[in-house]
Amino acid sequence: MTREVEPVINDHWTRAEFPHELVPGIAELGIAGLAYDGPGCPARGALVGGMVAMELSRVDPSIGTFMGVHGGLAMGSIHLCGSDEQRERWLPAMARMELIGAFGLTEPEIGSAISQGLATTARRDGDEWVLNGAKKWIGNAAFADLVVIWARDEDDGQVKGFVVEKGTEGIEFTKQEDKIALRVVQNAEIALTDCRVPEANRLQRAESFGDTSNVLRVTRMDVAWQAVGCARGAFEHALRYTKARQQFGRSIAGFQLVQDLLVKMLTHVSSTTAMNVRASQLQDAGLLKDEHASLCKVHSTTSMRETVGWAREVLGGNGILLEHHVGRFVADAEAIYSYEGTREINTLIVGRAITGESAFV
Amino acid sequence: MTREVEPVINDHWTRAEFPHELVPGIAELGIAGLAYDGPGCPARGALVGGMVAMELSRVDPSIGTFMGVHGGLAMGSIHLCGSDEQRERWLPAMARMELIGAFGLTEPEIGSAISQGLATTARRDGDEWVLNGAKKWIGNAAFADLVVIWARDEDDGQVKGFVVEKGTEGIEFTKQEDKIALRVVQNAEIALTDCRVPEANRLQRAESFGDTSNVLRVTRMDVAWQAVGCARGAFEHALRYTKARQQFGRSIAGFQLVQDLLVKMLTHVSSTTAMNVRASQLQDAGLLKDEHASLCKVHSTTSMRETVGWAREVLGGNGILLEHHVGRFVADAEAIYSYEGTREINTLIVGRAITGESAFV
Amino acid sequence: MTREVEPVINDHWTRAEFPHELVPGIAELGIAGLAYDGPGCPARGALVGGMVAMELSRVDPSIGTFMGVHGGLAMGSIHLCGSDEQRERWLPAMARMELIGAFGLTEPEIGSAISQGLATTARRDGDEWVLNGAKKWIGNAAFADLVVIWARDEDDGQVKGFVVEKGTEGIEFTKQEDKIALRVVQNAEIALTDCRVPEANRLQRAESFGDTSNVLRVTRMDVAWQAVGCARGAFEHALRYTKARQQFGRSIAGFQLVQDLLVKMLTHVSSTTAMNVRASQLQDAGLLKDEHASLCKVHSTTSMRETVGWAREVLGGNGILLEHHVGRFVADAEAIYSYEGTREINTLIVGRAITGESAFV
Amino acid sequence: MTREVEPVINDHWTRAEFPHELVPGIAELGIAGLAYDGPGCPARGALVGGMVAMELSRVDPSIGTFMGVHGGLAMGSIHLCGSDEQRERWLPAMARMELIGAFGLTEPEIGSAISQGLATTARRDGDEWVLNGAKKWIGNAAFADLVVIWARDEDDGQVKGFVVEKGTEGIEFTKQEDKIALRVVQNAEIALTDCRVPEANRLQRAESFGDTSNVLRVTRMDVAWQAVGCARGAFEHALRYTKARQQFGRSIAGFQLVQDLLVKMLTHVSSTTAMNVRASQLQDAGLLKDEHASLCKVHSTTSMRETVGWAREVLGGNGILLEHHVGRFVADAEAIYSYEGTREINTLIVGRAITGESAFV
Repeated sequence: MTREVEPVINDHWTRAEFPHELVPGIAELGIAGLAYDGPGCPARGALVGGMVAMELSRVDPSIGTFMGVHGGLAMGSIHLCGSDEQRERWLPAMARMELIGAFGLTEPEIGSAISQGLATTARRDGDEWVLNGAKKWIGNAAFADLVVIWARDEDDGQVKGFVVEKGTEGIEFTKQEDKIALRVVQNAEIALTDCRVPEANRLQRAESFGDTSNVLRVTRMDVAWQAVGCARGAFEHALRYTKARQQFGRSIAGFQLVQDLLVKMLTHVSSTTAMNVRASQLQDAGLLKDEHASLCKVHSTTSMRETVGWAREVLGGNGILLEHHVGRFVADAEAIYSYEGTREINTLIVGRAITGESAFV
Repeated sequence: MTREVEPVINDHWTRAEFPHELVPGIAELGIAGLAYDGPGCPARGALVGGMVAMELSRVDPSIGTFMGVHGGLAMGSIHLCGSDEQRERWLPAMARMELIGAFGLTEPEIGSAISQGLATTARRDGDEWVLNGAKKWIGNAAFADLVVIWARDEDDGQVKGFVVEKGTEGIEFTKQEDKIALRVVQNAEIALTDCRVPEANRLQRAESFGDTSNVLRVTRMDVAWQAVGCARGAFEHALRYTKARQQFGRSIAGFQLVQDLLVKMLTHVSSTTAMNVRASQLQDAGLLKDEHASLCKVHSTTSMRETVGWAREVLGGNGILLEHHVGRFVADAEAIYSYEGTREINTLIVGRAITGESAFV
Repeated sequence: MTREVEPVINDHWTRAEFPHELVPGIAELGIAGLAYDGPGCPARGALVGGMVAMELSRVDPSIGTFMGVHGGLAMGSIHLCGSDEQRERWLPAMARMELIGAFGLTEPEIGSAISQGLATTARRDGDEWVLNGAKKWIGNAAFADLVVIWARDEDDGQVKGFVVEKGTEGIEFTKQEDKIALRVVQNAEIALTDCRVPEANRLQRAESFGDTSNVLRVTRMDVAWQAVGCARGAFEHALRYTKARQQFGRSIAGFQLVQDLLVKMLTHVSSTTAMNVRASQLQDAGLLKDEHASLCKVHSTTSMRETVGWAREVLGGNGILLEHHVGRFVADAEAIYSYEGTREINTLIVGRAITGESAFV
Repeated sequence: MTREVEPVINDHWTRAEFPHELVPGIAELGIAGLAYDGPGCPARGALVGGMVAMELSRVDPSIGTFMGVHGGLAMGSIHLCGSDEQRERWLPAMARMELIGAFGLTEPEIGSAISQGLATTARRDGDEWVLNGAKKWIGNAAFADLVVIWARDEDDGQVKGFVVEKGTEGIEFTKQEDKIALRVVQNAEIALTDCRVPEANRLQRAESFGDTSNVLRVTRMDVAWQAVGCARGAFEHALRYTKARQQFGRSIAGFQLVQDLLVKMLTHVSSTTAMNVRASQLQDAGLLKDEHASLCKVHSTTSMRETVGWAREVLGGNGILLEHHVGRFVADAEAIYSYEGTREINTLIVGRAITGESAFV
């Protein structure tokens, strides 16, 4: 990451382009689907998976997100909801990154309330399913080899998952332009118009929205770890800068006001790391609950947001130039802060767990 | 601003280009040098000047900054430090925006400690001055008709101001690329190599750095007002969005957690407005001290930064798309936060005033 | 205040006793009911009234509260809801502080939702009313000459106000012990058991809860001003302390980390003052709405709470000794923060005003 | 703690008296000097010691502090700096709490800069030492059986430790009155006037201030754990209250604004716990550095302070009554926040470690 991604990533970020040329190098790391023990997967568990997610985002949150979508959400959907045959068919190639995956859940009008109002439909027609609807914010979608589309079965009203492979007719991708964050990640809006998918591509063990949620649960800790990585990257760049930058005849790292911010950043990085370690250990022990992951997501992302702000602050005006790196983390943090559950939604998930009262509506 | 700037500004922002086509319309408003009573200037005073600065930045902080540089810093330099003849020569045309100005003080290695280490030099040679050195972050510079360059006289060591007109030899501009904030503002690095300027272009009443500081003092309140405008713009877009956005079957503006953020934003906007009104009234009464403007700058910019963050938060994922406007304010706020004196420097200016002790070094 | 209250107040605070001996001196100031233009009242308006409230609390928030209850709430109830005869009967003596008033609205189980569930009842019986119920948190009650009791008419269900004079049978006061804040203020629980009050003591112009609310509206700005005073008092003590306290061979006021806190305190004091001035001007112009006062209350009290915390922080360990004064402000701030509408309730009042949606329940 | 301390502690707190009658029960727990492996000590290590410190302060921070002074600082001084004979002489009886200890380092004019300016002196006179000077803030001092006094040897200028036993002449204790925090803890000012102590009571292995610092280092993590306990106690009382308190016809625990605060509290409690666990594990492994403990102290205490504030906030007005418990935690937090190193000092210790630059002066 430091050797190959860091030197080139600002240029891709500013042009909002994905560095496809870096994928083979990432594939060599053998980290796609790192936590899973499905066929061809590294089976290293949640803690190692989380720490690697942190390390990726420490250098670049876009690459971290790319891998979170591919190795976490897409592979996780197939790993958790696919039949043995489906897992064999796709996971080994995805682990080798010969196939890149995307995950199509979010819709234009439905963000955090996704469990209630999924509008994309699936209708059984013989050996096929016919998908109709719209998706938004689907990372990797435009260039992915397969997209997991979640849709509501018109027949039984249940949410089911479908692997839509590249080249399928009836699915159209429109790249989302003019993002201010994670500009390297290619998000697309998806339009599904009588898109036909064989029954063999329906994830055989996804029988309701609860199964979709399982995927999100196992990946939510990765988002918390990405947030730590984003904060840590900004902190490390800021620390380096303050040691080098001279003002009033001395390194600014020696000023109390600068140390104040550096220490606040380090506190955030340390405390989120420590808390996520514990939650990932719970996950590896099979004890992680939704509210644990939500608490970590809230803590890691709110801490990240303050951290990247302080990092940019100590860079002064130079902090708004991409070349000093911190600016990119400031921008990217905004996406991580909101995706896979806003602060508000995750707060209410924890709130319900500790009070016994639902306050969503 | 709402009618002509808002519909097109995101597009310029994303392409990092200045909308020259909008300048004639802005010129018609008659607001350049609004506060000054120099020849051809509107003479409306600091309070009206500040409020107009707020209104510009409420729609777009880049345009607000463009005008702050031209109508505030550049015109202010000539107004405060120029001879009567110089003021007549330049101010009326600048007020009509037939001539656009820039202000060249900041240098690559000197930010907040500018009073101590200005490295650009001026050497008298007959009826001319020879300028050498480098500037950075000079807004409007690349396309300005005249740039006020501040340089240290090799002879007496004093800082003096020089109006360098377009086409002068020995001055080169390099546009600063890949900014994450105020992307519409065209900042340039300036290289001065034996750049010759006639004595008639030396600002005749700038005899030391104290005079440069006077310019900064009268314009610093404008930056505080820009910050209020930036916050207010983000708040208004956020309020509108939350009323329109439906989740869980109702407008999200009706959720307590959303109202919490909206009310915090409004509190910041209201309190910074109220405090800046008072300071601008002091300025119009000739009573404004450095520490007053510094306190307003700190308060307005720290409040702005929180406000734009909350605004983006209530937009959820949509907040990272430029089309919803708030993202631009989030990004631009970072520049306003740091320019014309960081939080740290302004804090220490106030700290010195109230304790009697200097803590800069 | 500085000469007579400050030297003795800590001693009363620690013993939780009211300094009755100071009342004549306060009476001489002529500030009871300062804003009101009722008979015998100073008629100085809301802005002067607010500033005086600030000055009282700047020296001691308990005295500020005592006067807020007597001169604001109790006199305000009679001023706004009493007949001409009633105003003549009580206001001049109250303005001279020959009669001290209390205000009985809050009940044990009803705090912020007071409009919905007032449980104290009034029953008309010939020329008398029979009051039954319980009140809590009633400041000044135990020693007051008259207590305004708000009760629901069993007949028409409307909330009405009754002036219960000292010595009336059927009203019992129990002093609330072991408060951590405003320990000088004597709050009492009130038990009303067939307490009989003549019709002549029913406030003739209080016909519904809306009239009670009017009293709260005109006094809420005073609470905002008390909060500014509490913050300002702590700030001024802290500033003085840091100039005097030596560590590492110098005044701690010269350290960046200390100046950082001092400047944050001053920012809060300045911005809340400026905003309250504007709101009080609106009040004097008859334009103040509930949401304006609520916004000021939220802003002033949240700012106060941070300010007193920073003040105590710069005192280090000495900050927990009453003798350095700041500790008392830290404690008292907690009461001001919550009374006459919590942050939450005032936030939702403002939220409703700006979004058009009620989020109370 | 819950069974015997909680029911009676508010009463002692309000009267500022120490509950000597509870000491035998505490002694039975066998937790004095819990982490140490000296003679008679439990030798349970730093992690267990820290967690027990948290549990004590969760019920009452004063009792936690009492034990921190006795079992941490006083026993730690003898454990780390005493000869084998001295450890045998005092530690077993102290572990059984038959002897209660105090720790005399802080002086009236020297707080955080203690390494530089210790003014209490020791002069060797035959087999005795003669101590002169003043101490302040010495917890347990007035009733302790032995006080460890740190003084500067007039001869070699080094700081040495002396165990002054009860009844020694020349030492006088003055209880510090009117504290707003930890009112159960009995702090005293100490005056030493030609106080004679036998050489046998000089801690034989304390040869410089570095040895004193060692004691502080091993106990600083306990203070971090006390802070977590203080926060956790407030959180648990607040959670219980919000579930029970009804407003607007429902439990307030079901309101979004209340859940927001509860979840923020839990986040703080969880993240500080997780981080302190890791640091205590480092301590047990012999790897803990000053900056680790300082970072934990800063994080735990700043988090505690916010947590107790939010806890009190959700209690509304009732939060200022001791009977609801939270008020005591709010007050006590202020002492924990500042003792054994202020936020500022601990920040600069960490800042020096990560930047390589000392910013103390």
